[in-house]
Amino acid sequence: MSDKKCIVVLSGGPDSAVVAYWAKRQGYQIYPITFNYGQIAVKETQAAQKIAQTLDTSTKVIDLSALKDIFGGTTSLVTRDIPLTSEFSNTIIVPFRNAIFLSAAVAYAVTVDTDEIFYGAHGSDEPFYPDCRREFYEAFEKAAQLGTTRKITIKAPFSSKPKSEVIKEGIKLGVPFELTWSCYLDGITHCGKCEACVNRKKAFNATNTTDPAEYETTSQVA
Amino acid sequence: MSDKKCIVVLSGGPDSAVVAYWAKRQGYQIYPITFNYGQIAVKETQAAQKIAQTLDTSTKVIDLSALKDIFGGTTSLVTRDIPLTSEFSNTIIVPFRNAIFLSAAVAYAVTVDTDEIFYGAHGSDEPFYPDCRREFYEAFEKAAQLGTTRKITIKAPFSSKPKSEVIKEGIKLGVPFELTWSCYLDGITHCGKCEACVNRKKAFNATNTTDPAEYETTSQVA
Repeated sequence: MSDKKCIVVLSGGPDSAVVAYWAKRQGYQIYPITFNYGQIAVKETQAAQKIAQTLDTSTKVIDLSALKDIFGGTTSLVTRDIPLTSEFSNTIIVPFRNAIFLSAAVAYAVTVDTDEIFYGAHGSDEPFYPDCRREFYEAFEKAAQLGTTRKITIKAPFSSKPKSEVIKEGIKLGVPFELTWSCYLDGITHCGKCEACVNRKKAFNATNTTDPAEYETTSQVA
Repeated sequence: MSDKKCIVVLSGGPDSAVVAYWAKRQGYQIYPITFNYGQIAVKETQAAQKIAQTLDTSTKVIDLSALKDIFGGTTSLVTRDIPLTSEFSNTIIVPFRNAIFLSAAVAYAVTVDTDEIFYGAHGSDEPFYPDCRREFYEAFEKAAQLGTTRKITIKAPFSSKPKSEVIKEGIKLGVPFELTWSCYLDGITHCGKCEACVNRKKAFNATNTTDPAEYETTSQVA
């Protein structure tokens, strides 16, 4: 087994799954970590576990669902009281979520004795989500180095690529996309209408490959 | 009521209590936030609530105790399997804890609609705890500005002062130190022997005032 270790923030969605497969291909022994932050789409944490198993590991699922008490009033990803939209809107942003995840990932890195953390930020999210921007995670990396005694690095290998390129990379790596979960809701199948489903469908369409996700024919999304 | 709002990371210990009183005196409407991170000293979260009540508010206590699953193997603040020491040691550090707290505090700031976050880092902790250093929280502040759409500021008003000066400031501000909890353990009274109790006693001694905390006559600390 490789002694090159890394933490992977694994959401259960396709992007971080590709990152996990990519890191494993690079020879890393991967330590995935997954968060329940009170999201409606708690199915994604189950998806993360299934993906981790295909990589011969398991993900550490950390229950931070009490954060719902902070996020609840602002985002439709956590509360059904706020209508979910099919295009990007401010109510889709979960404020500073990636910083919370990355902070816990840094703590995990310290306990696992590694400096390297991978996460799935990519170019299609960057214009919309401030905590997916390269500027953000570079500043965060500096804070992590100063706030620990380690040379922590935060790596987002696909940060300059659009989501469709991430999917293409995943196809090459053999990522089991049928196990991934993108939808912001918790239906039996993907709703097909929320911003996450729409972006997933667009990305697969651009690769000319079939998205293995099943989609509902009716949806709760306006 | 003032419309100048701020978040205060309130642990239940004396330092952050002074910061809360200080911020209120500066005219802020304060929004305290307190974290259960799986610490043995869960009494500090109850202390935080009592302190908040003396400031005519309540603190939002967020249960992140699942983090114990990350921290458990490394720090005596979370697990009794690791002996607690009366002097600083690496096993007292909870890796990157302040970053996790500050990240959640930033999220809370966004939802409360303020840019200002106060926390109780001070000069006596700075040489020992990397996430109490000015360099750390300045870098974190930059990450917070880039990872949100707000001009977030992280303020540690006593970062250059020793703990004894923080206590002096608290005495002037009328902080009810009898409600604060410093001990890393969960006894009926403070153990008097752990690093936190020792530092508290030293700081009060240096001010020539009586520490209102009750201390045990026997202790579990080596």
